[in-house]
Amino acid sequence: MRLLVVGAGLIGSSVALAARDAGWQVQVLDASPGQTELASTVTGLPTADDSMNPDIVVVAVPPNATTQLVIESLNRYPTSTVVDVTSIKSDILIDVETSTDTSGRFVPTHPMAGKETSGAGAATYDLFADRLWVICPSASPADTDRAEQLVRACGAVPVRMSAAEHDATVALTSHLPQLLSSVLAAQLQNLTEDEVAVSGQGLRDMTRIAASAPDLWTEILLANRQNVLARLGDVQTELTRLATALQTADAEVLNSTISAGNRGRAKLPGKHGSKPRPYATVAILINDQPGQLAAIFACAGKGGINVEDVRIDHALGRMVAVIELDVLPDAAKPLSELLTADGWTLRRTAEPD
Amino acid sequence: MRLLVVGAGLIGSSVALAARDAGWQVQVLDASPGQTELASTVTGLPTADDSMNPDIVVVAVPPNATTQLVIESLNRYPTSTVVDVTSIKSDILIDVETSTDTSGRFVPTHPMAGKETSGAGAATYDLFADRLWVICPSASPADTDRAEQLVRACGAVPVRMSAAEHDATVALTSHLPQLLSSVLAAQLQNLTEDEVAVSGQGLRDMTRIAASAPDLWTEILLANRQNVLARLGDVQTELTRLATALQTADAEVLNSTISAGNRGRAKLPGKHGSKPRPYATVAILINDQPGQLAAIFACAGKGGINVEDVRIDHALGRMVAVIELDVLPDAAKPLSELLTADGWTLRRTAEPD
Repeated sequence: MRLLVVGAGLIGSSVALAARDAGWQVQVLDASPGQTELASTVTGLPTADDSMNPDIVVVAVPPNATTQLVIESLNRYPTSTVVDVTSIKSDILIDVETSTDTSGRFVPTHPMAGKETSGAGAATYDLFADRLWVICPSASPADTDRAEQLVRACGAVPVRMSAAEHDATVALTSHLPQLLSSVLAAQLQNLTEDEVAVSGQGLRDMTRIAASAPDLWTEILLANRQNVLARLGDVQTELTRLATALQTADAEVLNSTISAGNRGRAKLPGKHGSKPRPYATVAILINDQPGQLAAIFACAGKGGINVEDVRIDHALGRMVAVIELDVLPDAAKPLSELLTADGWTLRRTAEPD
Repeated sequence: MRLLVVGAGLIGSSVALAARDAGWQVQVLDASPGQTELASTVTGLPTADDSMNPDIVVVAVPPNATTQLVIESLNRYPTSTVVDVTSIKSDILIDVETSTDTSGRFVPTHPMAGKETSGAGAATYDLFADRLWVICPSASPADTDRAEQLVRACGAVPVRMSAAEHDATVALTSHLPQLLSSVLAAQLQNLTEDEVAVSGQGLRDMTRIAASAPDLWTEILLANRQNVLARLGDVQTELTRLATALQTADAEVLNSTISAGNRGRAKLPGKHGSKPRPYATVAILINDQPGQLAAIFACAGKGGINVEDVRIDHALGRMVAVIELDVLPDAAKPLSELLTADGWTLRRTAEPD
C-alpha cells in the first residue's frame, strides 16, 4: 500500500511511522517546506514527490484547513481514498459533499489517541496501538475498507459509526464532561486556602480536565455546538429537577438520580474494554523515598501476583503517601501476607464491590 | 487524657485506636452490647464502665442518632468536652444549642478520612494520619482546644472554621461534584456499547464518584440542602450562559469559561498539600504480566529516581497497558535512558506544563 500523509504534526507523523512499521510505502508532505524537512528528518521518511500515486491520502492538518485540503487531495489524486483525522465529523463531511462529486472517496475518521504533546518530534509508531479509531463509512464500501486497512495497520481498533452518530456521541462522552468540569472548577476560584483544603479525591477527579487548553476547546465546542447544546439541555433539565427536589426535600428524586448515576457509570468499560471487574484493594503506607514502590512491586512479583491497577493517594502535611494496589480478590490475602512479612504497614484492605 | 468513644464503627474505633496509640486512656461504648463486645475484641480496648470521668467524649454514631447522644453525653458528663464527627455541622449545632444550655462544651468536628469499608473490623490507628480534620470552635476556647488535642493525637491536621462555613464549603467541594457526576453518569444509561467505547479517561474521571451509595448521599444532600441549592444555582446560571454562548457561537464566553476553569483547577492543592508541581511524565508500554511494574520501579530505584506519581493507562483490545511515571523534570532524561537500556519501549515523554 502507498500512503501519502499531508500534515506532519503529531498525528500525521505517527500515522506515517505506524504505516511504515507495517510495511507500507509512505511519503510525508507539509504546507511548510521547513516542517516537511523537519518531519522527514525526525521520521526518516522521504518527503513527497510528484511521482507517487497514493492508495490513501491522510489529511492531518488543523480543523480549519482540513476541508480545503481534503477537496484538493480528491481532485489531485483521482483514484485515492482520502481520510481526515479531525475530532468532529459532520461539518467537514457536509462541506466536502457540497463542494465535489468525488466525495465517495472521502472517509471521515477520528483516532481516539493521546495528544499531551504536539509536533513531529513527539510522534511514535505506537501512538494508536490498541486505541479506538472511529471510521464514518462513505458511500463507497471499497474506500471505507481501505480506510479500515490503514486503521488496522496503525494497530488501532476500528469502530464504524455515522458522522452524525460520532458527533452526537462525543458531545456526551467528551464535550459535555469538559463543560461541566470547567464550570465546576471555575466555582473554586474564590475559595480560601483552608476551604480548598477541605476537598478530596472526588473534586480532583472532577476538575482534572478543567486544565485543558481554552483555545482548542473553544474551537471544538463551536464546531459541535448543536450536539453539545442538546446534551447540555438534558443536564439543565435534570439539574432543575434536582433543585426542586432539594427545595421540597424530596428524597425519592435525589435517591433515584444517584441510582441512575450508578447504572450509567456501570456502563463504562473497565480495563481492556471489558466490563468493570471487581478488584480487591490493598493499601500500604509509604514514605516518599526512592525504591519503596520497587520493593512493593517486587514483593507482589515474588508471589506471582499481578497488580491490576495502582494509585498513589497523597496524604497531606508530611511526606507520607498511601499506595493502593488493585488485585484479583483471591490475591488480596496472599499479597497482604507477603507485604506484612516484608515489614510494610498496611492501611486497610478493601473487598471488591 | 481520658477518652470515651460512643459508637464503635469505623470512625469511632479508629479514633479509639489512634488515641490509645498516643498514650491516652480510652474506653469504648456502643448502643448494641454485642457491637461493644466486638469492638472491644477487635481493638483490644476495654468497654466503658461507670467509673470513667472522661475529658473528652467522641460521639461517632449515624447522623440521625447524633444529636440525642451528644445531649445525653453533655448531661451525663458535666465536665467533659463532647465532640461529634458527622459530615454536616450546622443542623446538629443548632439542635444542640436549642436543647441545652451546656452547648459550650460541644465542639462539632469533621474528619476528612476515607471510608471505603465500615465497622470496627476496618478500623486502623492511622486512619486520620495527615488527613484534614475540621473543628468548628465552640463558645468555650478550653473545650475547642481540647478537641484540637484529640485531633492532633489522631495524627490529623486541624483546620478551624465555623459550622456555617464548613457546610457551605463542602456543598461546593463535595456535594456539588457528587450531583454533577451523578447527573452526567445518568446520561450514559442508554448508550450502545460502541458509543460507550468512544470515551476516554476524562469521562471515567468525571463519573467515578457517580458509583457512590444512593441512600447515604440522599441523606447528606438533604441535610445540607440549602447550601447545595445555592451552589447548584451558581452552576445553573453558568450553564444557561454557556447555552446562550453555544446558540450564538460566542467564542469569547466559551473561552473565558474554560480559562476560569483553568484558574479554579490551579487552586487545588497538589501532592502533600502544596501547590501543583510541574512533573515530567515518562510513559512505558507494558504487557499485563506480573513482575513488569516491579522491574520498572527497580530500574527507577537503580538511578535513585523518586517516582512522584504513577498511573496505569489501560489500552483497549489486547492485554497491553501504558504505565506513566511522573518524575521531577531533571529526572526524566536519566530515567528514560535507564529504561531504554533495560529494553523497555517508551511511548512518549511529556514535559511539565
